[in-house]
Amino acid sequence: MTQQMGSQSLQFAEAPFILSSASVVGKKEGEGPLGESFDMVCDSDKFGEDSWEASESSMQKEAAALAMGKASVKPQDIRYVFAGDLLGQTIATSFGLMDYEIPLFGLYGACSTCGEALSLGAMCVAAGYADRVLALTSSHFASAEKQFRFPVEYANQRPLSATWTVTGSGAFVLAKGQGQAKITGITTGVITDYGVRDSMNMGAAMAPAAAKLIVQNFEDFGRGPQDYDLIITGDLGYVGQEILWKLVGDEGYDISKNHTDCGIEIFDAQRQGTQSGGSGCGCSAVTLSAYFLPKLASGNLKRILFVPTGAMLSQVSFNEGQNVPGTAHGVVIEAAD
Amino acid sequence: MTQQMGSQSLQFAEAPFILSSASVVGKKEGEGPLGESFDMVCDSDKFGEDSWEASESSMQKEAAALAMGKASVKPQDIRYVFAGDLLGQTIATSFGLMDYEIPLFGLYGACSTCGEALSLGAMCVAAGYADRVLALTSSHFASAEKQFRFPVEYANQRPLSATWTVTGSGAFVLAKGQGQAKITGITTGVITDYGVRDSMNMGAAMAPAAAKLIVQNFEDFGRGPQDYDLIITGDLGYVGQEILWKLVGDEGYDISKNHTDCGIEIFDAQRQGTQSGGSGCGCSAVTLSAYFLPKLASGNLKRILFVPTGAMLSQVSFNEGQNVPGTAHGVVIEAAD
Repeated sequence: MTQQMGSQSLQFAEAPFILSSASVVGKKEGEGPLGESFDMVCDSDKFGEDSWEASESSMQKEAAALAMGKASVKPQDIRYVFAGDLLGQTIATSFGLMDYEIPLFGLYGACSTCGEALSLGAMCVAAGYADRVLALTSSHFASAEKQFRFPVEYANQRPLSATWTVTGSGAFVLAKGQGQAKITGITTGVITDYGVRDSMNMGAAMAPAAAKLIVQNFEDFGRGPQDYDLIITGDLGYVGQEILWKLVGDEGYDISKNHTDCGIEIFDAQRQGTQSGGSGCGCSAVTLSAYFLPKLASGNLKRILFVPTGAMLSQVSFNEGQNVPGTAHGVVIEAAD
Repeated sequence: MTQQMGSQSLQFAEAPFILSSASVVGKKEGEGPLGESFDMVCDSDKFGEDSWEASESSMQKEAAALAMGKASVKPQDIRYVFAGDLLGQTIATSFGLMDYEIPLFGLYGACSTCGEALSLGAMCVAAGYADRVLALTSSHFASAEKQFRFPVEYANQRPLSATWTVTGSGAFVLAKGQGQAKITGITTGVITDYGVRDSMNMGAAMAPAAAKLIVQNFEDFGRGPQDYDLIITGDLGYVGQEILWKLVGDEGYDISKNHTDCGIEIFDAQRQGTQSGGSGCGCSAVTLSAYFLPKLASGNLKRILFVPTGAMLSQVSFNEGQNVPGTAHGVVIEAAD
């Protein structure tokens, strides 16, 4: 039997596998340090479409097709899709996945959605509700800037704490039996508000939620930093990483030796002018798919704690002067035996 | 073992129960035919807050508190919340549920979210992942009009096909063991696009998805209309109902004898000027809680198919000339033995 661990975690008796995954990104991501590793880099960020929103949908469709192709499965072999994005009413997802006609559970967890989708997908497969599910998320720099901040044409200056929304979509086929890595447990986050109100400093807004999630994971599983080869947050960037280390340190754990952040890995911040780092639902998804899963498959990593982080703001909540609360979803991923 | 039925359904071996539920609504809903049945009617639609979004959050918080109170459980007794709303980045949910500090799976299924939340909540309880979960959704007339159509102050004329977004929040505590009714199965919808582009005719946009879902449910479970005391859609209204009967009829099933719609039940359309009927995530949630669950608890209904319906549009997708695809989530609810 799958076990409830502590107050926020599950350990799967029979761990679902990540059968295949795929990453599709834009031009800037292709020029970054992980550029060679992505499955598809699109030279234009339009992905053949006329609007940024449709471009993001196109990217999702492509990522899903690639992941299914690698697993040699067709849409009708996938019982559920767990998917979401950052746009209002998650339109990138609705319009991107429509043609596949797969039963859809639409999710919203801001930039933590990849963790949420992998969690629910793993729960679903582990319970025998589906033989195969697809977990999928995306973000697009241009559609996100338009949604949350300023139109790109306005050329607003970006402070050093700002992150750069990744143009990318990551897709994962989960199944019983075999695969490149397995999901052995999850820790589900609560919404955490430390009073940050700066939409140009998402790292600071999300770090407290990530810190709480990581400490909770340690407590629920009776583990410490040494039990993970890497603890990988989603998009805290350099600014958020510093806060995270301090907050987790305050609880008695030093994660500075084995922590990294997808937002730090995906761009060369100095060369590419991405300030604090990358962000967005796509950031953690494509970095997991292109960079960390291959290391688990090759045995270079044995067990990681993957913690996509999300900032729960909207343009409306921001304009009405609300804080920016954060959340996080933790997924324990281990090398297949 | 829980069984996968057909291509889109699950039948739970050990059916999770709806331990308790609660409904909180605004003034207009309180003046409708179900007014006496709601747990709380707020005379002002502000629920003590300054903005419509915060009012919606306040309503969610209250519905959750009432449902937990009826079940005599505290927030820390609830392992997961499955919740969502209609606003961009689901801010009514994030801000509404923050104080409870319960691990949250944020959902977006437009007005079908109540069905999505009950489905995932039931899956979670049936698998033993949680002893108790909370499924929760809301909508608010003023925040929704602002989000999707025109500011209320603009006084746009409403065509006869328009529906009136319900100001309401419904909460359900699901648990193993006992309760007023049980969830014996689910049918999960796909996104369906029949080319409707009119944001003032959501019923027509959603009816095809509802029709497909209902027919799929019949096929997956080997049932027909006669196997349900009632088939209850979420918010098709009068216009959508007519289309639904026709589409389901085309597949050889007559549901005109035992179909109703929460959007039709909740308002007296003639007297209250709500045109085609009520809509919104809150519509199906509060109607199920206040009107249909008591009938299941008293034995007046034995088995219903509850089908919240959603229109997957956003202001952006609408302005960019996209269609309005629909979706639906089906939940089979039966009287407790």
